[in-house]
Amino acid sequence: MSRGLFITFEGPEGAGKTTQIARLVERLQDTGIAHIVTREPGGTPLGTRVRQVVLLEPDLQVDPLPEFLLYSASRAQLVERVIRPALERGEVVVCDRYADSSLAYQGAGRGLDAGLLTQITHAATGGLQPDLTFLLDLDPAVGLARAATRGEPDRLERADLGFHQRVRAGFLALAQQEPKRFCVLDGTDSPDELERQIWNMVVGKLGAIRTEGQV
Amino acid sequence: MSRGLFITFEGPEGAGKTTQIARLVERLQDTGIAHIVTREPGGTPLGTRVRQVVLLEPDLQVDPLPEFLLYSASRAQLVERVIRPALERGEVVVCDRYADSSLAYQGAGRGLDAGLLTQITHAATGGLQPDLTFLLDLDPAVGLARAATRGEPDRLERADLGFHQRVRAGFLALAQQEPKRFCVLDGTDSPDELERQIWNMVVGKLGAIRTEGQV
Repeated sequence: MSRGLFITFEGPEGAGKTTQIARLVERLQDTGIAHIVTREPGGTPLGTRVRQVVLLEPDLQVDPLPEFLLYSASRAQLVERVIRPALERGEVVVCDRYADSSLAYQGAGRGLDAGLLTQITHAATGGLQPDLTFLLDLDPAVGLARAATRGEPDRLERADLGFHQRVRAGFLALAQQEPKRFCVLDGTDSPDELERQIWNMVVGKLGAIRTEGQV
Repeated sequence: MSRGLFITFEGPEGAGKTTQIARLVERLQDTGIAHIVTREPGGTPLGTRVRQVVLLEPDLQVDPLPEFLLYSASRAQLVERVIRPALERGEVVVCDRYADSSLAYQGAGRGLDAGLLTQITHAATGGLQPDLTFLLDLDPAVGLARAATRGEPDRLERADLGFHQRVRAGFLALAQQEPKRFCVLDGTDSPDELERQIWNMVVGKLGAIRTEGQV
């Protein structure tokens, strides 16, 4: 059964995900590899509404569990309508954040039970996991300082440093649990160096698919 | 431990929930019983946003599972911030729709797995169940004709008659499973007759609480 490659980018605010996604997409374009790029929350009309509510209205009272359920609603729609169809067409899907962000932010960061999050996420995604996850790791103090130069902070950027430290530890713990899926990168490396490492990994994975018919 | 009484109203579109809730609230006011009235989706600033997205934008593509997760997000916030605090103050809480609506509309109506819905609902509500649920039962053809006189149909009112028949059957099945909690009323009875039956049930439950210290 022919299928594509599902790549996610994870990591704290200001770690360089946006830059690296843009560079990877450019490489995919230049190489003529069919792909789509999307993000969470967002990526569908419903996801865009959820993004508005959950991130861009930081004064709206949203408790941790409802916050997670809103992200899950956006995720379920995105998987069903965008990600799965692209993978079934054999394309590369590049997604800015996915379920690992819920485990890190709402689980490790906000303290929701990881078992519950995993169970609901499995339902929302039909169990769809990325083939490859780039974790851009960075000291949150550095990341927040970078993000602060980009204008008004959103709901997550407003949270305190302790929260962001728990999120970072949460991401690293996930990477340790699934070393085959995760590729942990140092967010203080230069953008060119990161781009090179990411492209090498992607080419390797694509080669494995093309050769063996599976990831 | 002192606590209040949690009353929900369920049933198809046009069954008379709004009228009966207004009449019950008037009776509670006249009798000097502390109470709040709320609704789903809604009842909190987050719930109002969810209501906008999920009901009032009928052209927005929302699949069954994301739809359910959005309702669950609204429900979780409502339970945590509005319903539980009122019950802890010993008040009567009157809620227009609650978890049974998800089981009937997204479960029986849209075909989502009841076990999954129950599991996520339990997480979203912390297991909080109503003490008393009035199901205003009505042939959906009658209910939709009544609802049609109220202006633009929302997302659920737009669904076909087969959907609404499955929803009705779903509600009746829930009532059969929990005969102690449910009070099934005939939505074709006169508003005055329904009001009398509802008030008798509520007074009975309140008497039981006051006398025995529990529902």
